[in-house]
Amino acid sequence: MTTFKSIGLVGRLSSDKARRTTEQLIAFLRSKQVSVMLSTELAHTLKINSVPQGEEKDIGTTCDLVIVIGGDGSMLGAARAMADHRVPLLGVNRGRLGFLTDIMPHEIETKVTAVLEGEYLSESRFLLDMVVVRDGKPIGHGDALNDVVLHPGRYIRMIEFELYIDDHFVYSQRSDGLIVSTPTGSTAYALSGGGPLMHPKLEAVVLVPLNAHTLTSRPIVVAADSQIRLIIGEENSTYPHITCDGQTHVVTEPGDEVHISLKPNRLTLIHPRDHDFYDTCRTKLGWASHLTQ
Amino acid sequence: MTTFKSIGLVGRLSSDKARRTTEQLIAFLRSKQVSVMLSTELAHTLKINSVPQGEEKDIGTTCDLVIVIGGDGSMLGAARAMADHRVPLLGVNRGRLGFLTDIMPHEIETKVTAVLEGEYLSESRFLLDMVVVRDGKPIGHGDALNDVVLHPGRYIRMIEFELYIDDHFVYSQRSDGLIVSTPTGSTAYALSGGGPLMHPKLEAVVLVPLNAHTLTSRPIVVAADSQIRLIIGEENSTYPHITCDGQTHVVTEPGDEVHISLKPNRLTLIHPRDHDFYDTCRTKLGWASHLTQ
Amino acid sequence: MTTFKSIGLVGRLSSDKARRTTEQLIAFLRSKQVSVMLSTELAHTLKINSVPQGEEKDIGTTCDLVIVIGGDGSMLGAARAMADHRVPLLGVNRGRLGFLTDIMPHEIETKVTAVLEGEYLSESRFLLDMVVVRDGKPIGHGDALNDVVLHPGRYIRMIEFELYIDDHFVYSQRSDGLIVSTPTGSTAYALSGGGPLMHPKLEAVVLVPLNAHTLTSRPIVVAADSQIRLIIGEENSTYPHITCDGQTHVVTEPGDEVHISLKPNRLTLIHPRDHDFYDTCRTKLGWASHLTQ
Amino acid sequence: MTTFKSIGLVGRLSSDKARRTTEQLIAFLRSKQVSVMLSTELAHTLKINSVPQGEEKDIGTTCDLVIVIGGDGSMLGAARAMADHRVPLLGVNRGRLGFLTDIMPHEIETKVTAVLEGEYLSESRFLLDMVVVRDGKPIGHGDALNDVVLHPGRYIRMIEFELYIDDHFVYSQRSDGLIVSTPTGSTAYALSGGGPLMHPKLEAVVLVPLNAHTLTSRPIVVAADSQIRLIIGEENSTYPHITCDGQTHVVTEPGDEVHISLKPNRLTLIHPRDHDFYDTCRTKLGWASHLTQ
Repeated sequence: MTTFKSIGLVGRLSSDKARRTTEQLIAFLRSKQVSVMLSTELAHTLKINSVPQGEEKDIGTTCDLVIVIGGDGSMLGAARAMADHRVPLLGVNRGRLGFLTDIMPHEIETKVTAVLEGEYLSESRFLLDMVVVRDGKPIGHGDALNDVVLHPGRYIRMIEFELYIDDHFVYSQRSDGLIVSTPTGSTAYALSGGGPLMHPKLEAVVLVPLNAHTLTSRPIVVAADSQIRLIIGEENSTYPHITCDGQTHVVTEPGDEVHISLKPNRLTLIHPRDHDFYDTCRTKLGWASHLTQ
Repeated sequence: MTTFKSIGLVGRLSSDKARRTTEQLIAFLRSKQVSVMLSTELAHTLKINSVPQGEEKDIGTTCDLVIVIGGDGSMLGAARAMADHRVPLLGVNRGRLGFLTDIMPHEIETKVTAVLEGEYLSESRFLLDMVVVRDGKPIGHGDALNDVVLHPGRYIRMIEFELYIDDHFVYSQRSDGLIVSTPTGSTAYALSGGGPLMHPKLEAVVLVPLNAHTLTSRPIVVAADSQIRLIIGEENSTYPHITCDGQTHVVTEPGDEVHISLKPNRLTLIHPRDHDFYDTCRTKLGWASHLTQ
Repeated sequence: MTTFKSIGLVGRLSSDKARRTTEQLIAFLRSKQVSVMLSTELAHTLKINSVPQGEEKDIGTTCDLVIVIGGDGSMLGAARAMADHRVPLLGVNRGRLGFLTDIMPHEIETKVTAVLEGEYLSESRFLLDMVVVRDGKPIGHGDALNDVVLHPGRYIRMIEFELYIDDHFVYSQRSDGLIVSTPTGSTAYALSGGGPLMHPKLEAVVLVPLNAHTLTSRPIVVAADSQIRLIIGEENSTYPHITCDGQTHVVTEPGDEVHISLKPNRLTLIHPRDHDFYDTCRTKLGWASHLTQ
Repeated sequence: MTTFKSIGLVGRLSSDKARRTTEQLIAFLRSKQVSVMLSTELAHTLKINSVPQGEEKDIGTTCDLVIVIGGDGSMLGAARAMADHRVPLLGVNRGRLGFLTDIMPHEIETKVTAVLEGEYLSESRFLLDMVVVRDGKPIGHGDALNDVVLHPGRYIRMIEFELYIDDHFVYSQRSDGLIVSTPTGSTAYALSGGGPLMHPKLEAVVLVPLNAHTLTSRPIVVAADSQIRLIIGEENSTYPHITCDGQTHVVTEPGDEVHISLKPNRLTLIHPRDHDFYDTCRTKLGWASHLTQ
C-alpha cells in the first residue's frame, strides 16, 4: 500500500535519455500498483501511447503526486502549472543534479520506493505573482517560482525605472534591469547577478540590480509579503521586458507599473529523506568539505 | 503631560559638541517637567554634576525612555547594555545622520517634543547572542545588535573554520573570517564586505565570508532563529578573535566552537514619525532620487 | 597667434543648451581669428547656417583641432569618426562633468583660450578594432574607444561562447555576455559590470564577464595588443549581438568568430592643464577627499 | 651535455613527501652529471647530509638554476631571496598544482630532463619594492613577488589612509586595508579580495581595497612603474601593518609613508614547454572547458 496512489508524469525533454527514464518510471510505478497518467505534452514528445494521458490541469486535479522528469527548467514550468492545484511535485533529473530535481536516474527504484512508502521530506515553496498595469488596468501577468526579471529586451541600453517597496520610494535606477528573486531562485540567475544565497525556508525576496550605473546599488532583501512596484521610466528608448522564470515575457511601455507580490498558493516539493540544501550547494558550487591545505 | 516621564541620557563622547547637545537636552526636558537621569559615564565624561546620575543598569530599570547622544557606535553600546531592561532607545546624533541615531541636534526641540507627545514610530530590533564553547564549557560570550565577526586577530593569515547551520554542515572555509549580521548590521560592516542590505523588519541573518579563498563562497541569508555554529580549525597558526559590534572581543583556540543564536530580549527603537529606512539609505549611500540623464 | 588655426565643431545634441554653447564657442573662436567649420550634422541639428560646414571626414582632414560639444557619448562617436585622421579632440560638456568632456560651458573662455595658446595636456588613447568573421570572411566590423560588448540582443537567455587570447584557449562561458574594455571604457559600462578602473595611460584591455553562470569567472586584464577571439556557441537559441561603444551593432550567428585587436591609429585627447584623472574619479564616484569621521 | 650545469635545491617543507621528492631529484640530477647544491635550510629540515650545502645567497651566486620544492609559498620566499642574483627558478610542487610550481612529483624525470636539454619557457616576473618612511627616513622595507598588503594588524578596526599615485592624490580611504598586487599575485590574495586576474606578462599593478567603507571604491589597475604612496592616517587607533607576500611584516605609526615601486631586478621563472597560464586558471578556478549543458 503506497502513500501516493495516482501519479502524474510531466516533462518537456525529447532526448533518448528522457525517454528511457520515463519508460523506466512507468514500469516501476506499475509494478507498485500505482495508477500512472502522462501529460499530453510528454506523451507526444516521447511518442508513448501505452499510458493514460491528460492535460496538465487534469493531472493537477486528478493525481496526488506529480513526478517531473528533466532539469530545473522543467520543474519551473511544472511548478507554475501545478501551483493552483496543490499537488506535490517530485523531480527526477536526467543525470545532472539540480537544486529542484534531486533524484538521479539510477536512484529511481530505491528513492521513489521510499517516497511511495511515505519516507520523504515535504517542503513548501512560495511563488511570486507579477502583474503589469497600464493606465490603471492589468495588461499582462505571470507567476514565478524563481524570479521576475526586468531587462532591456533588445540591445544593451540601460533601463530607467523607479522602485517602491510597500509604497515607500526606494530609488530611481539606471541599470541593465532588476531581478526579483525568491529563495528558490537565489541559486539561479540572481546568484550570477551577485545576489546572496537564501535558505529555501526563508520568507524573503531579494532584489538584485543588474550592472547598475550607481555603484552603491546593492542587493536588498525584504520580507516575502512585501508589495514591490516598479515604474518604467518615460525616457526609455527601448521597451523593457518583464520575464518570469526566464520563460514567460511581457513587453512594457514607459509609465507602466509592474506589481510583484506573494502568490497565496504555494508549491509543495517532495524530497528524498537524505536531501540537504547545503549538500547540494557544496556539490554544485564547489564549496570545500574539509579543512585542508 | 508627556508619554515618557523619566528619561535617561547615555553616551560616550567627550567633544564640546556632545556637551552642548547634552546640556541643551537636559534644559529642554526639564522645561517639559520630565525627570532626567544621566549615566555615570556620560556625567563623568562631560563633567556635568547638576543632574541625578545612575549606572546604566539603574537607568535601564528606572527610566521609561533612554536617549542616546552620539553616533551609531554609541547606540550599539547602549543597545547591548539596555537590551535586558526592555526600555526603548531614541538616538540624537552629533550632526551626521546615522542609521540608528536619526535626530539631528538642531531638531531636538521639535522632534523630541513630538516623541514626548506620543508621536513616534516604534520598531523592534533583534540582537544576537554569542557564546564561545571550549571542551563543552562556555568560556566567553557577547551580545550584538549589528554583527558577530570572526577574524584573524593578528596578521593576515587566513582562518580555517567549519560552518554549521541548524546542525547541517555548510562548508569548510579558508578566509579572512566571517561576518554574521542582523538586518541592523547589514548597513554597516557587512555591507563593506559585500553583503546585501536587509530591511530592518526582516527576521533574518546574513553570513558574509571575508575574502574567501573559494571564489564561489557567497553571502547566505537564513532565518533569524537559526542556530549558527562555527568550529575553529585545528591548523590555525593564529588565535582567531570573535568580536561583537566591533566592541567586545573573545580570543579563540583551535577546536573552540562559536554558537550564535537569536537573543530572546529585543531592543525597542523609537523614531520620529517621518523616519524612513530607504530615505536614510538614499542619503547615506548616494542612491538617485530622480530619473535623469 | 594661436596653436590651432582651424577648428571643427561636432556634436549631436539638439537642446537649447547645446545651441547656446555652440554659438558661444563660434563667437569666441572667431574673436580669436580662428577659422571655424561646423559638422553638417551639428549645423543641421542646431539650424546654424552662418558658418562653413563639412562632413565629419572633411573636418578630420581639414582642421587641426576638433571640439566636441556634448557628453561622453558624443565624444565616443566623434572619436570613432576622427580616429583615422589623427586630429586631436577637445570636449566641452553641457554642464555635467564627463570623463572625456572636461570643460564646463562657463569655463569656455578661460580654458579654450589657454588651449589655443598652447597650454594643454595631450593624451593618447587607443581604440579597439572589431571584426565578425563568418565562414572565414569578414561580415561586419566596428571601432570602439570604450568597449566591445557581446550580449544576447533579445531576451535574457544566457549566451554560450568560447574565449581565446593570443590563440590560447581561455574558457567556455555561459553568461549574459562579455565586455571587452579599454582603459577609457573602464569608467563606463565595464565599471557597472564589476570591472576594475584602469588608468588611461595603461596599455591594457579588461574582459568583464556579465553575470556568468560559473561564479569563479572574474575580470581578466591583458596587454592591449592581445588578439582576442570569441567563438559564438552552436547551441545559442538567440543571435547574440556585438555592440561597439553602445552605438554600432552587428548580429552574429552560431559559429561566427569575433576578432578584437588594437587599432593602429590612436586618438589624441586634449585636456586643460588642470585635468586630473583621479580628481574626476573622486567627483564622479564620490570618493572621499579627506580623512574624517 | 645539459643547459644547466649547477643546480641549487631550496625549500622549506619538512614532510616525508618533500623528503622523497628531494631525494628523487638529487639522484636524478646526479645521474645527469649535474652538480647539485642544497640550501642549508632544506638540508637541515630534511636531514640530508650527503650533498654539498650552501646559504641561499651562495646558491644564488653559484648555481645557474634553482629548483624550488614546495608550494607557491616556498616559491615566494625563494623568489625574494634570489631576485638579486638573476638565477632562474623552476618549481616542483608536492602534488598539488600551483600557479608558480607547475611540475608534479611524478613528472620530474620527463619534465626536468626536458628543461635540462633546453626545452623550456622562460618568463620574466617583476617584484615590488616596499619602504616605510618615518620622519623622512626609511625604517623598514621588503620585497614582494605577489603583493604588499596594508592591514590593521590587530582587531578589525578600519584603517584610515591616503593614497597617491605618481604624486597625484587618489583618495582618502577607511577600510580593512589595501592590497597592492603584481600580475603574479593577482591569482592569490588579491583575487579573494575581488581584484581582477592579470596576465603574467602584463606590466601593471592592481590596488584592491579591502572592505572599503566607501562602496564606490574599486580595484584600480596602473602601470607597473607607478610610484605608489600610502600615508597612514593620524587618527588610527591601531598600528596598521604592512606585509610582503604574507611573510615579512613592518608595523607602521600614524603619519608614516609607505612607498611601493617596481624593483629593478626581475625574477626569471622557468616552465615546462606545455605550461599555459589559462590552463592553470581553468584547473584551479574550475572554469568550464567545453560548451555544454
